[in-house]
Amino acid sequence: MADDPLVVFTPSGKRGRVPTGTSVLDAARRLGVDLDSVCGGRGICSKCQIAPAFGDFSKHGIVSRPEALSEWNAVEARYDEKRGLKTGRRLGCQAKILGDVALDVPPESQVHRQVVRKDAALREIAMNPATRLAYVEVAEPDMHAPTGDAERLAEALRAEWGVERLEIDPSVLAGLQKALRTGEWRVTCALHKGHRDSAHRLLAIWPGLHEGGIYGLAVDLGSTTIAAHLTDLSTGAVVASSGIMNPQIRFGEDLMSRVSYAMMNEGGATEMTAAVHDAMGTLVGNVAAEAGIAPGLILEMTLVCNPVMQHLFLGLDPVELGQAPFALATSDSLSLSAHDIGLAALPAAARVYVLPCIAGHVGADAAAVALSERPDLSDELSLTVDVGTNAEILLGDRRRVLACSSPTGPAFEGAQISSGQRAAAGAIEAIRIDPVTKEPRLKVIGCDLWSDEPGFVEKVGAQGITGICGSGIIEAVAEMRLAGLVDAGGLIGSPEETGSKRILPDGRTHSYVLHDGCEAGGPLVTVTQGDIRAIQLAKSALYAGARLLMDEMGVDRVDRIVLAGAFGAHISPLHAMVLGMIPDAPLGKVTSAGNAAGTGARIALLDVEARAEVERLVRAITKVETAVEPRFQEHFVAANAIPHASAPFPELRRVVDIPEVRFGAATTRRRRRA
Amino acid sequence: MADDPLVVFTPSGKRGRVPTGTSVLDAARRLGVDLDSVCGGRGICSKCQIAPAFGDFSKHGIVSRPEALSEWNAVEARYDEKRGLKTGRRLGCQAKILGDVALDVPPESQVHRQVVRKDAALREIAMNPATRLAYVEVAEPDMHAPTGDAERLAEALRAEWGVERLEIDPSVLAGLQKALRTGEWRVTCALHKGHRDSAHRLLAIWPGLHEGGIYGLAVDLGSTTIAAHLTDLSTGAVVASSGIMNPQIRFGEDLMSRVSYAMMNEGGATEMTAAVHDAMGTLVGNVAAEAGIAPGLILEMTLVCNPVMQHLFLGLDPVELGQAPFALATSDSLSLSAHDIGLAALPAAARVYVLPCIAGHVGADAAAVALSERPDLSDELSLTVDVGTNAEILLGDRRRVLACSSPTGPAFEGAQISSGQRAAAGAIEAIRIDPVTKEPRLKVIGCDLWSDEPGFVEKVGAQGITGICGSGIIEAVAEMRLAGLVDAGGLIGSPEETGSKRILPDGRTHSYVLHDGCEAGGPLVTVTQGDIRAIQLAKSALYAGARLLMDEMGVDRVDRIVLAGAFGAHISPLHAMVLGMIPDAPLGKVTSAGNAAGTGARIALLDVEARAEVERLVRAITKVETAVEPRFQEHFVAANAIPHASAPFPELRRVVDIPEVRFGAATTRRRRRA
Repeated sequence: MADDPLVVFTPSGKRGRVPTGTSVLDAARRLGVDLDSVCGGRGICSKCQIAPAFGDFSKHGIVSRPEALSEWNAVEARYDEKRGLKTGRRLGCQAKILGDVALDVPPESQVHRQVVRKDAALREIAMNPATRLAYVEVAEPDMHAPTGDAERLAEALRAEWGVERLEIDPSVLAGLQKALRTGEWRVTCALHKGHRDSAHRLLAIWPGLHEGGIYGLAVDLGSTTIAAHLTDLSTGAVVASSGIMNPQIRFGEDLMSRVSYAMMNEGGATEMTAAVHDAMGTLVGNVAAEAGIAPGLILEMTLVCNPVMQHLFLGLDPVELGQAPFALATSDSLSLSAHDIGLAALPAAARVYVLPCIAGHVGADAAAVALSERPDLSDELSLTVDVGTNAEILLGDRRRVLACSSPTGPAFEGAQISSGQRAAAGAIEAIRIDPVTKEPRLKVIGCDLWSDEPGFVEKVGAQGITGICGSGIIEAVAEMRLAGLVDAGGLIGSPEETGSKRILPDGRTHSYVLHDGCEAGGPLVTVTQGDIRAIQLAKSALYAGARLLMDEMGVDRVDRIVLAGAFGAHISPLHAMVLGMIPDAPLGKVTSAGNAAGTGARIALLDVEARAEVERLVRAITKVETAVEPRFQEHFVAANAIPHASAPFPELRRVVDIPEVRFGAATTRRRRRA
Repeated sequence: MADDPLVVFTPSGKRGRVPTGTSVLDAARRLGVDLDSVCGGRGICSKCQIAPAFGDFSKHGIVSRPEALSEWNAVEARYDEKRGLKTGRRLGCQAKILGDVALDVPPESQVHRQVVRKDAALREIAMNPATRLAYVEVAEPDMHAPTGDAERLAEALRAEWGVERLEIDPSVLAGLQKALRTGEWRVTCALHKGHRDSAHRLLAIWPGLHEGGIYGLAVDLGSTTIAAHLTDLSTGAVVASSGIMNPQIRFGEDLMSRVSYAMMNEGGATEMTAAVHDAMGTLVGNVAAEAGIAPGLILEMTLVCNPVMQHLFLGLDPVELGQAPFALATSDSLSLSAHDIGLAALPAAARVYVLPCIAGHVGADAAAVALSERPDLSDELSLTVDVGTNAEILLGDRRRVLACSSPTGPAFEGAQISSGQRAAAGAIEAIRIDPVTKEPRLKVIGCDLWSDEPGFVEKVGAQGITGICGSGIIEAVAEMRLAGLVDAGGLIGSPEETGSKRILPDGRTHSYVLHDGCEAGGPLVTVTQGDIRAIQLAKSALYAGARLLMDEMGVDRVDRIVLAGAFGAHISPLHAMVLGMIPDAPLGKVTSAGNAAGTGARIALLDVEARAEVERLVRAITKVETAVEPRFQEHFVAANAIPHASAPFPELRRVVDIPEVRFGAATTRRRRRA
């Protein structure tokens, strides 16, 4: 009716008339306003808090006066006394609308609030978790109308929360009767509804109002490390993050050696599954302790990983992934309970969502990068490279997205490098070489000074420089090329050829001394000819993969390059391009996306619709298999030169000069004759 | 077209025209004829065999000639050579229709064949199992269109078998890749679709054509014994039956003592769950060995049991069932995997269907009796009594069905009876007492002669009579009443009062000697006054339960009585009525239904629609709780007399004379004064 009060909700701007005496919560539901409630309007959960705004809102065409809401009632007073209500706030389920009013819904009262991504974000994460809390009052048993406690719970959830079909996880059924009686027939349910489910699934039940929150774990299961973000499923906040080494390393450093281990050893796959499940247990213990929560509150997990890790996590033999045609046991996403997988780290009922694989060599980690970076929404043709032991590469725009993986090997992670080490304190992470003096300046992890700045020696000490990490070796090789210490073929010049006394003979080749800590009892940190060869192999594989996708797309340049991966975030775009790891592009268009795979896992954790999205995305992606593609070999060989044997790299040359040096021609000839 | 051949299938009588050259299998599918096929028409499974009939079938209006079917082809010839095809049979997928023809579908080629129930059957069981076999050819993996093996299997099942949504049991996924490769991309799948499922679930996969059959187990889990029928899921044939003691007996003889055990002992419920799961393992081993099959081929199980057993089987604490209001954790049917329940006896993927409970005291066993006996389809008002430690009682007809349970105690099973024993060799199972001489004649389990027939002594021997089983004690008490040895109050007369030298003094009461084996070193088998009191308590409870339902229904007579239960089959209706266990009814209308609960389990196993049926049935049943109903006590007291203190039993008196004796009035008075 026209005389009914007019109510305007901000920030949504949704408005409408409701009968006098309607509660704010009911008004919100009627007008489709996103206002949270766990207790179903009983004034105990306080999730439906709103802030009335009073004054003349000409924009909304109303004058909002304090008397437009009912006065505080006993329920609000009790809540305020017990737990405190912020000044200016009301409980939406208690405050009744008596006149025209403007009401603000603060972010914490919105179910579908936006979570801001910390990394360079293309978009925010919409909160739309698959698992939510619902508080209900259940009818007590009646001998003369006997139904089970479960059936009366289901009826209460239907009546109060519209849950049409309830399935109870078998592990939860055992605790149902006790929870109902302890809570005197009032319980809080954790209800899960996946994007493909027709029923809600009861994952946990607590007596009374559960105020401990529920949590989800976004896991990036890499060959080398396992990283997890523990996330509050109501707020989307990351409450703890932790990473541990993947203990499968003892069965093989890289994926193929683990596949071999499974092939050569009866029960080997099972052993590796047990090892990763154990590690998950440790990781869950770590993040739960860090956040100060019980691990039993972790009711969901999303998992991104490469196909071999996916198989080993699920208890599947990865043997088929070791040989063409690299057939996955299953490529679709999986939605299972921890009990289904035999994963003891989480409650038996906890739901595990494994993102879909793109192909036998392009796993859920690549799918997660796609979900995080959404190349399919980009007008610009973007190349996304997730740098790791295997590089996942995506190329595409609105029209089409291609994907492949490329076996770069572990050189970029500091392995197979003479002075290589993991990115930890003491590792050289940045290098600049003066093109005239050929002298280096260094930055070391754990110190924010350059080595030529005052105080560096005091802060780091000679012994404090222990080796070179992945981003360091990329910069070292690129800087050596820019300083004319290394030629296009990757050969380090002699002291005579380069004019640098930092060049040392090393058998028939040469090394460049980055740091000499010997006098202080520290190491001699050098870049050897072998290091450069290893980096050349790795960068050629990466470039060749990208190039293969560009061929498939029919282009010879890209608009934008995104370096993804925990490691990718630390790579200097300039140096990567000098090295020829990535194709030529305007330097300002080369950005880092941080751990995009981990972000994808987090998106899938918090937004159940994103799961449908990534599944659609993966189905639409064109997969390119590098392992059997002859052009991959051609591209690989051509990419061996620094930056490249034939590609001109005009954008790169616009910002740097790359010396036209050529070393060791005589030496090479001598060797060949020998 | 009118010129297309006319084909008539028998026994269905379905007929129609199909294009010349159509295979018989395709014609059957087109005309909706029930013709089986596992291999999908590849001529290898032989499930689609048909028998053409030739001649002039004026009834069907066709003349069927041998040339109406194509000649044997190479596939049929190869099948016949390898495995033999019965004379006159053709493979329906190979034989093509060239002219008018009459085709008979033999029972073994029908999916939905009828299985004849051995017990006194109201109806046949329709074969409509939830789990079926499907043979498919799966596309090989293609690196350039990479999908998982599971996804290609799902696609094959969709294309060939119309499986719209496939879920793969996690335990089956691990063996998928190997099965596909061993079978060279031809596999047989066991697919399960429950009556509430929207997806098919893959329960097992075999390379090539699986010819080992698949099996289901119908289990009647009683407090005392566990009985199981192993059944072929394609033919419906029971291939092995076995029963073992319920090992939970060591925690308590009856249900309430087991509930107490769970209440008094931390972890007691878990112990009892483990015990019954162990026993299931033994039982599965037994039936599988008897049938000569691998236990891994048992892919389904249906379970009927009382509510306490249901809770303990599922790992639920039964404590709430020990006290009013007797709240079940869950009353609906359950459909779970063996892995969900933690039941190691079956393959992890095997589906377990637990029939619904009617009330806290009226379990799935009563629901199964209702499914087997279908009182709701009866025009006559029928009373169904499942006699056991707890009696389940159903009363109803087309209009309405009522149910209750009544705590009869273990007397009917021979417990609490001085010479009582289980129904095994040596137990007296039938008795006749001459009303003049008061001398008994006996029948003993294991011997088909009466004790007064020549050869009995030789066959049984004096030592061979060891005690009285449940049906024996019922006959003994009833015959003693009919012979005037026991009065209406249940008192055994003295030798003087009865004129029988078989009456012995026994403290202040008397006993009747059924058999004296003492000289031969055997036992003295007597019926004591205590035995009669125990039987009176049991039979009063049973009668009172039935009577309570009759009150609720507003009737004082029933048209028909069905004695169900393994034990019920052995009860003589006349003697049960003399005892007053059951209400008065025409004797010819008192029948035995054998183990109706077990039959209900078997029906639910073989016909997935019967699961929906029993769920509907249970929802429609009116539950009556005996434990808190004051009239139950009144009925119980009045039913103490033999046959009854007030009910006239006119139908009974039409066939027997019940002596109007009264004993020991003086004795009783003396005792009361003392």
